[in-house]
Amino acid sequence: MPKQRENIKYLEGWNVPLTIWWDADKRIVRLIDQTLLPDEVIVVECQEWQDIREAIRSMRIRGAPAIGVAGAYALALEAQRFQGNPEEFFGRMKEVKRKIIKVRPTAANLKWGAKQVYDSLVESGVLEPEKLKEIALIEAEKIMRDDIKNNMLIGKFGSEILEKKRILSEDALKLLTHCNAGSLATGGYGTALGVIRSVASKGIGVHVFACETRPLLQGARITAWELLRDNIPVTLITDNSAGWIMKKEKISAVVVGADRIAANGDTANKIGTYSLSILAREHGIPFYIAAPTSTIDDNTESGNEIEIERRSYSEVTCVRGVRIAPHLSGDQVRNDAFDITPHEYIAGIITELGVIQEPYKEKIGQLKRKNTERIPR
Amino acid sequence: MPKQRENIKYLEGWNVPLTIWWDADKRIVRLIDQTLLPDEVIVVECQEWQDIREAIRSMRIRGAPAIGVAGAYALALEAQRFQGNPEEFFGRMKEVKRKIIKVRPTAANLKWGAKQVYDSLVESGVLEPEKLKEIALIEAEKIMRDDIKNNMLIGKFGSEILEKKRILSEDALKLLTHCNAGSLATGGYGTALGVIRSVASKGIGVHVFACETRPLLQGARITAWELLRDNIPVTLITDNSAGWIMKKEKISAVVVGADRIAANGDTANKIGTYSLSILAREHGIPFYIAAPTSTIDDNTESGNEIEIERRSYSEVTCVRGVRIAPHLSGDQVRNDAFDITPHEYIAGIITELGVIQEPYKEKIGQLKRKNTERIPR
Repeated sequence: MPKQRENIKYLEGWNVPLTIWWDADKRIVRLIDQTLLPDEVIVVECQEWQDIREAIRSMRIRGAPAIGVAGAYALALEAQRFQGNPEEFFGRMKEVKRKIIKVRPTAANLKWGAKQVYDSLVESGVLEPEKLKEIALIEAEKIMRDDIKNNMLIGKFGSEILEKKRILSEDALKLLTHCNAGSLATGGYGTALGVIRSVASKGIGVHVFACETRPLLQGARITAWELLRDNIPVTLITDNSAGWIMKKEKISAVVVGADRIAANGDTANKIGTYSLSILAREHGIPFYIAAPTSTIDDNTESGNEIEIERRSYSEVTCVRGVRIAPHLSGDQVRNDAFDITPHEYIAGIITELGVIQEPYKEKIGQLKRKNTERIPR
Repeated sequence: MPKQRENIKYLEGWNVPLTIWWDADKRIVRLIDQTLLPDEVIVVECQEWQDIREAIRSMRIRGAPAIGVAGAYALALEAQRFQGNPEEFFGRMKEVKRKIIKVRPTAANLKWGAKQVYDSLVESGVLEPEKLKEIALIEAEKIMRDDIKNNMLIGKFGSEILEKKRILSEDALKLLTHCNAGSLATGGYGTALGVIRSVASKGIGVHVFACETRPLLQGARITAWELLRDNIPVTLITDNSAGWIMKKEKISAVVVGADRIAANGDTANKIGTYSLSILAREHGIPFYIAAPTSTIDDNTESGNEIEIERRSYSEVTCVRGVRIAPHLSGDQVRNDAFDITPHEYIAGIITELGVIQEPYKEKIGQLKRKNTERIPR
């Protein structure tokens, strides 16, 4: 995968690069290599769908909505490269869908994004590869644009609910977040950070406490970086400080993203989220999930059914290439990438269609039915 | 401070180096440079009391009981170097005591250790510097040996209480610990790890989940290393995994050390301890503090009065010399070295005199009175 410092595209009106985009001239997919942030902002060129798969696997691109878009682009890219017999086209697409979904099993959006493109092809009724290529690309582009639009709606609904958490109107909202649910975790703008951006855009004082988020430090590396670029006040803390900071700083709310939301509202998100939900409850702080409805997987009844990805022990024993522990074997380190927060601990799930609250199962069911009716496929 | 790989002294019967000791041949203090663990086991030579102060400040030696011993040796070392008029001796000792205590304000033992040596000099009634030198050294050596003995008693009482937490006698105890309350945090053997060593010595199956403990990673660097050397099964986890691991692994108990225990049982310990106490309570897991009574400061009424040391932001933004965040200023990072766990969350404080439980204020008062009567000064 060639890399370059040039050709960075920015989210319109914001000082943050786009996460992933289609380069119409070169007919390739480009994405920011997030493993190098904040030291370097480097664009990776994906010529083949396998390049996108590698980027997802190695977390050059991460964040459930962002890898949803990447999954969509993987199919679109393979469609462009397709040169076989027309009757092989759908088989090829199906295989790419199947293979790319497997790379990261917890995030709902990856499956969702790949499926959206695949379904758009099947449901188009078209059979000529040249036309199908166009349909695939249009669909992937739409998923990317819709994700940004949805995040802005999440921001709108989230900022409305958070505004009310200020005791005095002149107080700054003190928000705690985990990992990076920012512009770079999505098509753009961000979910949890989208909410924070929307609050700040309204001229409401806001101060963000960003948990660094071991092992891969997306909070320190990416969230702090995004907020600095947007001039939103930020304090970086170690993950284990969260309880103490909640107590000492009188945090107004916790807002995080999600990797998969079950039909009952149980939410898989970056490891550490479950602990934060308990600590928030202990301190009487409302705990919000911000995520597009594409993160809701209503085929998953509850959190118990969500597969938790375990990643390499070396992510824990090495930090940015530097060893921080004695030599340990894989079974002497536990590296669950996600945990499950029970719906009972969640004050609300902020989506592009509004804020979902208890009873989650009922509300999610209604919303999914309404959504399906609204956007027939 | 000269450094060397040779001359490591080991705790008798254990595969862990002594933390700090008096070199009678060279008439200097030696200590293990813990900032280099686990990569290198290097001995630092302290020729002057200021070398000990630097070692405490830079955390080459850390852990409340260990820096208590170091504080005692600082006075003993300065006593050996003393060459002024006899009438200046006590003033000099008082100054060293005052200056060394200031280096780390939270740990009770540092003040305690320095005070023990100073008081032994004052109360001896002796005035000749040559004899006072001897008294200071004997007292520092006694503090070091007593600390190890006390830890073994803590181990005895702690293992008795933990043994009962096994549901079935063949089950391994699953113990979670934070930071390093090990041999290297003390004169030797350890407090929380002393309890774990005692459990293991009895042939009871034990499995330790060690939180890595950001920012300085004493859990990953030192606790995991100590346990590996002692062949005690260990799983290293990120701090933010603790809640999830408690839930998934059915942890039997949490055992941690302490930096200062107030008269009402409120306990200052490494940042993250407060969160762990809440998470333990949520999961119905007993939460124990293991500490010698020298960590109890009955002049501190409650946790509210304990000064919390704030350390440099660079400990958070850099991990072992590698930058992990964008360039942030000191006020964009919060690095409280400790937090306070309210006594209500503590199932018991395991000391060398037995396990203290609610009502803490009353029990601590009784114990301190009894202790003072038993060991008159």
